[in-house]
Amino acid sequence: MSERPHVVIVGGGFGGLRAAKELGGKDVRVTLLDRTNHHTFQPLLYQVATAGLSPADIAVPIRRILRKHENVTVLLADVVRVDVPNKRVHLEDGEPIAYDFLVVATGATHSYFGNDQFAEFAPGLKTVDEGLMIRERIFMAYEEAEREEDPARRDALLTFVVIGAGPTGVEMAGALSEIARKTLAREFRRIDTRKARVILVEGGARVLSSYSADLSDQAMRSLHRLGVEVRLGARVTHVDAEGVSVGDELIPTRTVVWAAGVAASPLARSLGVPLDKVGRVIVDPELSIPGHPEVYVVGDLAHFEQNGKLVPGVAQGAMQGASLVVANILAQIDGRERRAFRYRDLGSMATIGRAAAVAEIFGMKLSGFIAWIAWVVLHVATLIGFKNRVIVMVQWIWAYFTHERGSRLIHGMVHAKVAEPPVLPSKRGKDLASAVTSARAR
Amino acid sequence: MSERPHVVIVGGGFGGLRAAKELGGKDVRVTLLDRTNHHTFQPLLYQVATAGLSPADIAVPIRRILRKHENVTVLLADVVRVDVPNKRVHLEDGEPIAYDFLVVATGATHSYFGNDQFAEFAPGLKTVDEGLMIRERIFMAYEEAEREEDPARRDALLTFVVIGAGPTGVEMAGALSEIARKTLAREFRRIDTRKARVILVEGGARVLSSYSADLSDQAMRSLHRLGVEVRLGARVTHVDAEGVSVGDELIPTRTVVWAAGVAASPLARSLGVPLDKVGRVIVDPELSIPGHPEVYVVGDLAHFEQNGKLVPGVAQGAMQGASLVVANILAQIDGRERRAFRYRDLGSMATIGRAAAVAEIFGMKLSGFIAWIAWVVLHVATLIGFKNRVIVMVQWIWAYFTHERGSRLIHGMVHAKVAEPPVLPSKRGKDLASAVTSARAR
Repeated sequence: MSERPHVVIVGGGFGGLRAAKELGGKDVRVTLLDRTNHHTFQPLLYQVATAGLSPADIAVPIRRILRKHENVTVLLADVVRVDVPNKRVHLEDGEPIAYDFLVVATGATHSYFGNDQFAEFAPGLKTVDEGLMIRERIFMAYEEAEREEDPARRDALLTFVVIGAGPTGVEMAGALSEIARKTLAREFRRIDTRKARVILVEGGARVLSSYSADLSDQAMRSLHRLGVEVRLGARVTHVDAEGVSVGDELIPTRTVVWAAGVAASPLARSLGVPLDKVGRVIVDPELSIPGHPEVYVVGDLAHFEQNGKLVPGVAQGAMQGASLVVANILAQIDGRERRAFRYRDLGSMATIGRAAAVAEIFGMKLSGFIAWIAWVVLHVATLIGFKNRVIVMVQWIWAYFTHERGSRLIHGMVHAKVAEPPVLPSKRGKDLASAVTSARAR
Repeated sequence: MSERPHVVIVGGGFGGLRAAKELGGKDVRVTLLDRTNHHTFQPLLYQVATAGLSPADIAVPIRRILRKHENVTVLLADVVRVDVPNKRVHLEDGEPIAYDFLVVATGATHSYFGNDQFAEFAPGLKTVDEGLMIRERIFMAYEEAEREEDPARRDALLTFVVIGAGPTGVEMAGALSEIARKTLAREFRRIDTRKARVILVEGGARVLSSYSADLSDQAMRSLHRLGVEVRLGARVTHVDAEGVSVGDELIPTRTVVWAAGVAASPLARSLGVPLDKVGRVIVDPELSIPGHPEVYVVGDLAHFEQNGKLVPGVAQGAMQGASLVVANILAQIDGRERRAFRYRDLGSMATIGRAAAVAEIFGMKLSGFIAWIAWVVLHVATLIGFKNRVIVMVQWIWAYFTHERGSRLIHGMVHAKVAEPPVLPSKRGKDLASAVTSARAR
């Protein structure tokens, strides 16, 4: 090659960003493509949805993060297809881009298990846009309830259903309950927001099923204390404008959050290699695809098993994978041997409302206030940008002492129709809020 | 009346909010109606449009501001018509609301002087939504320029036109220039953002024409130092997707901000009383409408002359008017005499980019850094909410030392069509950023 090798990275989530940073200053040209202009810190996205934080607190322009690396170009572009034989990525508009090495890090989105018609009524929470849409629905429901004369319709407006009791679902349910019981308690004259119902529906036998059983119990007790109704072993059969059907029972509601299921980014299909049942790419030990050592997949889009278990779709997995991929690309350029991936589990944690959390971290199990402090410190420390950290700390100290949520603005969609289903797959490589993101994330 | 008198306030801007606060705890029932759930601090809206602040920093839920006043009910509702003879306001949906006293404070929006087809290409800046739309257009233009191969199209993408050189236009132009020359300077690889053109088009003979001539000169010098091209005496004849026509010259551009003209809220027409030529209600000395002492108009919607001059459409005018109206309503209830309005001009100020401003305040003329410090202190002090003040200060200190703008997220409309024209009249009673808002605003 006369020119320096060209590494194309698709996706500016935890994996893609880590890869771009570590390739900065190396003897390669790097192009990072993302459909949005910002990296989203997905573990705190539920805070945007519940008005605790503003989008700018948890999302940072990708080109700002990478501006010091002069060999890295960032382009706002939507990659629709990879042409593996010809080593090119095709964009929604514009000329295809040729690569010598490709890193696909487009992540996963939620799955409606074949019921995509639910999306309109039960948005998921993977992007800033979805977070703002959910925020608007929550606070509009209270506004409409204050004006509603019909008791049945008012009760439906004051019922909030979260589907799926993984970390995102548990965090959403906890925050929804606090909004009803604390934040809004004195602000309405005709309704009593403290009577709002928050229902967490889970198909499995316990909440936070990826955690140990005693932390699930802890979380369950915290949810009860917050007044959340938890329905375990409950199958959602239908969602529409009237409400959520669980088995034969209809729960009338206007506000539903979908926090269940995983569907890999559809870009995976264009790679022409075997996928697992949710569409993830089954990668080689070196994280490249079979037969094409120049094409790597990292993060939620990769299916990689270790000791018979899938590496979880968390920030740590994406970032550790990206570091290995960078090392392997540099090895290939130098003619050295590549290494196989080893995932090191640093633990996971989830919050349940104010001042309560559960964590499994460095082999320890924590719960309650101590786990919450650990959660706050870790998440603030790993936010990108000093200013963001200061501002998020101010917001949390404020919220802690006042129960206030500073970002309760309804804007953008008030006069619009029901929002469109979130058909756009997320490009972020993280299952929400479930991960310990290491300090290296900076 | 067997029940306490019912005061209905339409609009939660500076005037409406002041009236509601001062009626809090009094022996009346108060209902405040607004189409949005938040009060917007319009003097800082240009900071949202130019990514210096987040919406939540400058906008606060109206019902939170008023929650301590138990005799005040806040409803999210769109008032479409006042039925003066029957003392009722009609809503876009739901039953009409009867009043004993009415305070109309729905403000003004920008006027396209009969060319409403310009709105699609040249949004104004009166609401949070408009601020976010303009923000998105600005930063999308740079993203598209980075990918554009055609030099003429690239130049058009890197040209920003602001129409109208009042305080809003001057502040926008200054901020646009700083974005190009400082904030984004190192972040793009294919374009040089410092070559972006910012053009301020003004029909009159000088910028900031409501200020004294020497402060206009100061502002003009500051704009030149920032690299803004100012065109005085220039008439905009056409705006479309290709650019802005000034006389016979076409300026190719994709990003236009409309900061010219005033049009009063259309609600005024339903009052059935004489309006001035931009649609403002010509009020009696007591700020009520002719023949109906129970109907008051305050803020930008009111046409009130003092010493032969119109009281300007600034926050001070709206708030002083609201205080007088509250006093007059209480006087009417008690059978006392009403008072006539006396506006006390506390001055006005405008910023021109970082660390420069002009101010006429308490009879003094200030410019440069001292005026800027006065501007910052006054605007932060009058923001509602202690937390907002802390966070905005952090953002400004950060921005001052780094030239960074923390809220450069493009979200919401990236994949949408060209945004709709802002047909909705603003309900805020303030001409942007032009006013000294007194410390009583808290």
